[in-house]
Amino acid sequence: MTFTAVQAGVLSTMAEFDHWWSQRHQTGRFEVTKVPFAALDAWRFDPATGNLGHDSGRFFTIEGLQVEVGGTATRWQPIINQPEIGLLGIVVKEFDGVLHCLMQAKMEPGNVNTLQLSPTVQATRSNYTQVHKGATTRYLDLFIGPGRGEVLVDVLQSEQGAWFWRKRNRNIVVKVTGDVEINDDFRWLPMHLVRELMQIDNLVNMDARTVLSCMPLAQSGADETGTPLHSSSAVLSWFTEAKTMCDWSVRLIALNQVRGWSVTEDEIADHAGRDFQIIGVQVAAGNREVASWTQPLLAPRGQGLAVFLTRPINDVLHVLVRMRPEIGLLDLVEMGPTVQLLPGEDPSAVDDPFVKEVALGGLGQVRYDTVHSEEGGRFHHALTRYRVVEVGEEFPVEVPPNFCWLTVRQLMDLLRHGHYLNIEARSLLACVHSLW
Amino acid sequence: MTFTAVQAGVLSTMAEFDHWWSQRHQTGRFEVTKVPFAALDAWRFDPATGNLGHDSGRFFTIEGLQVEVGGTATRWQPIINQPEIGLLGIVVKEFDGVLHCLMQAKMEPGNVNTLQLSPTVQATRSNYTQVHKGATTRYLDLFIGPGRGEVLVDVLQSEQGAWFWRKRNRNIVVKVTGDVEINDDFRWLPMHLVRELMQIDNLVNMDARTVLSCMPLAQSGADETGTPLHSSSAVLSWFTEAKTMCDWSVRLIALNQVRGWSVTEDEIADHAGRDFQIIGVQVAAGNREVASWTQPLLAPRGQGLAVFLTRPINDVLHVLVRMRPEIGLLDLVEMGPTVQLLPGEDPSAVDDPFVKEVALGGLGQVRYDTVHSEEGGRFHHALTRYRVVEVGEEFPVEVPPNFCWLTVRQLMDLLRHGHYLNIEARSLLACVHSLW
Repeated sequence: MTFTAVQAGVLSTMAEFDHWWSQRHQTGRFEVTKVPFAALDAWRFDPATGNLGHDSGRFFTIEGLQVEVGGTATRWQPIINQPEIGLLGIVVKEFDGVLHCLMQAKMEPGNVNTLQLSPTVQATRSNYTQVHKGATTRYLDLFIGPGRGEVLVDVLQSEQGAWFWRKRNRNIVVKVTGDVEINDDFRWLPMHLVRELMQIDNLVNMDARTVLSCMPLAQSGADETGTPLHSSSAVLSWFTEAKTMCDWSVRLIALNQVRGWSVTEDEIADHAGRDFQIIGVQVAAGNREVASWTQPLLAPRGQGLAVFLTRPINDVLHVLVRMRPEIGLLDLVEMGPTVQLLPGEDPSAVDDPFVKEVALGGLGQVRYDTVHSEEGGRFHHALTRYRVVEVGEEFPVEVPPNFCWLTVRQLMDLLRHGHYLNIEARSLLACVHSLW
Repeated sequence: MTFTAVQAGVLSTMAEFDHWWSQRHQTGRFEVTKVPFAALDAWRFDPATGNLGHDSGRFFTIEGLQVEVGGTATRWQPIINQPEIGLLGIVVKEFDGVLHCLMQAKMEPGNVNTLQLSPTVQATRSNYTQVHKGATTRYLDLFIGPGRGEVLVDVLQSEQGAWFWRKRNRNIVVKVTGDVEINDDFRWLPMHLVRELMQIDNLVNMDARTVLSCMPLAQSGADETGTPLHSSSAVLSWFTEAKTMCDWSVRLIALNQVRGWSVTEDEIADHAGRDFQIIGVQVAAGNREVASWTQPLLAPRGQGLAVFLTRPINDVLHVLVRMRPEIGLLDLVEMGPTVQLLPGEDPSAVDDPFVKEVALGGLGQVRYDTVHSEEGGRFHHALTRYRVVEVGEEFPVEVPPNFCWLTVRQLMDLLRHGHYLNIEARSLLACVHSLW
């Protein structure tokens, strides 16, 4: 028996997508209300440490972090500690020779618009070990266990190093050939449509972007024939050198030992009011695993910025990455965007004149400029403006030692392994893919 | 002007090596005496934590470690915490078209025979930032800075996960073409001679073995034409799955919080007397950076065992690696030997019947069987018996899920990146290289 496209849950055009998406909006009920910490159910501040955690000991905790640079304590802040490794997976399948992704319409409490396009599966370990006591995660059996599909990529990747303590998720893409039963919240989208949707503000969520960034290049259409500026050995050596030179030392401390921050009934915030806040929310939802719940969220102030400069060198597009130490990364240093500003960082106050010029948008030709949301399950209205800016021969190939030109193929080769590209650089790479 | 081989410090034969090596033995004075902790100069137990450290705050500390498995504390032990990243480097150069390694005769206080063959440079960060107040590290300028050679490999690799807290060293090989001034402690050895020396007990030290293991395959003569049993994607997925499943959680604690261990005037030891000890030594040396010093060392009881099973599959040699969580590894899980026993672990007491059979030596044809020393700068008389055992078609290709067959080429590809193969597996890989 052959399914027609409609029967199999395939959407082929933007119009078909819009129709499905507006239906999803209509069926979804989702109310998010800010509440004082005392109104959080089963979340409590530990009397000894001041850490905010769940009675079950699961999910995540809000703890403190201390940073030393060259042996001197320089910074304290709260941080989200979620030691378990979650799974972010996209199922792909060919229909009439065209690769399609099984994408999900998913609500997250922190999303500015509630509903976003997500991977097939987005599960914390708590999810799939049933700590929520909710429903089994759909399609998980296509990723783990004996019945899983052909694995195209399967790698642990980091998440926001400014806000998470050593958080990683398993990014996985599997290809299936058999029939898959399609729920109303899921649809097969051809790759070109997913790329088109990447151009829309706050639609493709962070979890989808990171998995899409890792999808093998043969599937993403970016073949290269030119010669990279630097050999892969030289790139790896540059990276090793940078790791060796980093003299940061970070450690978890009790939240009540964090200097310069206070806890009130409603929020955890820095005295200067410049950094993020931790708040509590109550969530009422229709089609999530459980009907309603409360939880803390990390709420940044303002919008972040992430920019990739690109330039053709030796007839192949190169991307300028920057070595970036981040307090929460497992090994501190990963490669980040050419310019990355956290929400609240003022581009006009940047010291480095080169970074400042890129941040202020004074360079090159803008190829991509879209605002995307960061993880809506942990962050409240966390938005980042992602820009890809192409420069020409007027821009020097020689760059400061903390920068390096890599081709897209080189970045993809590194992405088969964890801990090379940070989440913002991976999001940008997914944006770059969408330009083809 | 052309140097002859002798002028350039090149040794071509085993006889020439033996002559140089016996000279080195004669010039070297080195006395190691066990002393009580109170006799250690500038080393002290911190009154609050009980941690043993140096007054300068540098070098390393002996701290405590607690392991939780699935949320339950199961093990406590002392551990060496040395957060800085050292450099282990070998300079290579072609003489008459043959690749030679610049090797060093180096004394280490913990070596059972004092003098061993070491990399060109073996420097802690303290070494090259002059904390010892000794001489500048020779040849370091060939590895870092503007005048360095062509980088063949440059990667951070882990060290003993049972004894070190997240220790990594930078493993680097550079190729030079210019003249290099040769000190009496250094000689150029052709690769085939280095491989021959690998067959001798306690000669090629751990630091040399790990760098040799990472040396690109084109230089080591092992070209493969057959098909690997598993694709590299499948291998990476197997590794990601194993990391995801590990439910260990480890953290540094104060040494005086370690249960089941005691500190006496002379040693830190477990009550059962089965594990390692921490002892103090006084060292008097002639040709080291400083004339004499005192320091703690970790002294294992007995000899470790590390075995690689190999088997031709699809006309190409495969090596059987095992997923191995170790308490001190940065990300806990790396690939280890087929069988790895720590000193004190009894092969006849092993639960797994397959591992037990390999450990007891009841399988296959022995291709390599040599005892090597572990890091003599930190460990006292730490010996491991390294065995490579080849099995034939009678041995099943299907193995339990925590094992995987990889080709040597696949292992070498992984070694371009850190945190895949543990130090014992890398030592064994250097042994495998020496069989060609």
